[in-house]
Amino acid sequence: MSAQDGNWFIEHFDSAGVAFGLRLKQKLEAVQTPYQHIEMWETDTFGYLMTIDGATMLSSRDNFLYHEMMAHPALFAHAAPRRVLIIGGGDCGTLREVLRHGGVEKAVQIDIDEQVTRFSEKYFPELCESNDDPRAELRFEDGVKFMQDCEPGQFDVIIVDSTDPVGPAEGLFKAEFFRHCHRVLADGGVLVQQSESPLLHSDTIIRDLHVNMREAGFDHTQTLPFPQPVYPSGWWSCTLAGKGCDVGAFREADAAGKDFDTRYYSDAIHRGALTLPPFMSAAIGA
Amino acid sequence: MSAQDGNWFIEHFDSAGVAFGLRLKQKLEAVQTPYQHIEMWETDTFGYLMTIDGATMLSSRDNFLYHEMMAHPALFAHAAPRRVLIIGGGDCGTLREVLRHGGVEKAVQIDIDEQVTRFSEKYFPELCESNDDPRAELRFEDGVKFMQDCEPGQFDVIIVDSTDPVGPAEGLFKAEFFRHCHRVLADGGVLVQQSESPLLHSDTIIRDLHVNMREAGFDHTQTLPFPQPVYPSGWWSCTLAGKGCDVGAFREADAAGKDFDTRYYSDAIHRGALTLPPFMSAAIGA
Repeated sequence: MSAQDGNWFIEHFDSAGVAFGLRLKQKLEAVQTPYQHIEMWETDTFGYLMTIDGATMLSSRDNFLYHEMMAHPALFAHAAPRRVLIIGGGDCGTLREVLRHGGVEKAVQIDIDEQVTRFSEKYFPELCESNDDPRAELRFEDGVKFMQDCEPGQFDVIIVDSTDPVGPAEGLFKAEFFRHCHRVLADGGVLVQQSESPLLHSDTIIRDLHVNMREAGFDHTQTLPFPQPVYPSGWWSCTLAGKGCDVGAFREADAAGKDFDTRYYSDAIHRGALTLPPFMSAAIGA
Repeated sequence: MSAQDGNWFIEHFDSAGVAFGLRLKQKLEAVQTPYQHIEMWETDTFGYLMTIDGATMLSSRDNFLYHEMMAHPALFAHAAPRRVLIIGGGDCGTLREVLRHGGVEKAVQIDIDEQVTRFSEKYFPELCESNDDPRAELRFEDGVKFMQDCEPGQFDVIIVDSTDPVGPAEGLFKAEFFRHCHRVLADGGVLVQQSESPLLHSDTIIRDLHVNMREAGFDHTQTLPFPQPVYPSGWWSCTLAGKGCDVGAFREADAAGKDFDTRYYSDAIHRGALTLPPFMSAAIGA
């Protein structure tokens, strides 16, 4: 549920009992697509804000935290990623980070709703600066169907950059979907899924995610927490799963010597995020 | 500014243009003290909530993040802390964490407003479980005046567990106050101050804090970020300053072998928090 309360956009995360808001300058535009209701806002201190069905998706100011952490830990955990698949991610911010890796030869992004990308090109052009990269392929179709039809061993890294596990994205957190991911990954492959709030979801969604990923055949799983102010509790996470790849480790020298700039990610941040606070380890279990 | 919006408590952080809220079960009680207006709420998912002058102070659910990070990094940075001073901290949660360290012989807590402690004893008894420890001394008086009158070299660690640097607590972020802290610390002493949001304040409050601490004579300063959902942006920090003590290091073996449990803090969390994300290092400067 969300509401415009005077000149504030306030999102009430009903299931968690927490709310987050940003002061607005103005509402810019809205569109009802076949899939969802997308709104664009200009905020006072966070730049542009995109919401989908009333839920905060991203802001100009803090999306670097999420996009860097959805891309770089997975890519540096893999020995030599060449072929990357992004499910969701229509704002193209994850795609941009992926294409910073010189070794990547192909990055396929599958978002069901083309309008997300059209709005992103208009309001977040910095996230779309790699959309014309010849290695990028943007497809607008159903990611789950794409996965079902995909030949085995086609990708080195799969990034599931989805909305919350309620409604349309629920299936993206289940073992059945992860079995497709496991099949579509080559040996040594890495899957990463955004995995909600360490404070709010460690003993529910995050714990279940590990169970489902292992049930689907992944032999290593690892959750990495990071800050994300516009999402519930301001604290978020991604969970990596390896197919014959230890995602609790990474190419530390390559990460330290990377030839592109980042604002949040670094080899030290990656190393730090690999050790969970005690309460999370206890909640997730062995 | 804060408001009860239906059954939600919503705090609008006007200066930052962000809002945070919790769903309420009920308002419990309120009191106007000579210093401030304190309110107690029962929330739906975060336990009890204390607000002062409409600003969120702490909740049952997530205060462990703040209290552990205000106490343990400073105490493990010091070689052998015996005498600890807490300025503010009337909810007693920081005091409890300090007294978990067996080597501490004396912990003095100076909060101007006794009513904060009385409410904490009633609604957060778990935070007050060490108030009767013979090593604890709870004083209700002006912390700034106490510091001005204090003899030199009386303490090994000073923890400034204050509200934001606007209004009454503004002076606690200035060089003049830090000069008193420097004088009151023994050689090898450590000062720690809560230091606002890495996303919102790195190039303002946090940067200025380092300047002011060094101007006051501290030779090492170090900011450590940590999650704190109920504060603006959900991401918070503490800043340590050393008087002949390198606060960029700590007693790693002692932290790893500590004889008490923590929910967020660990030696690995401490180590991780010592390396800042690139955007913070750039904002704070050398």
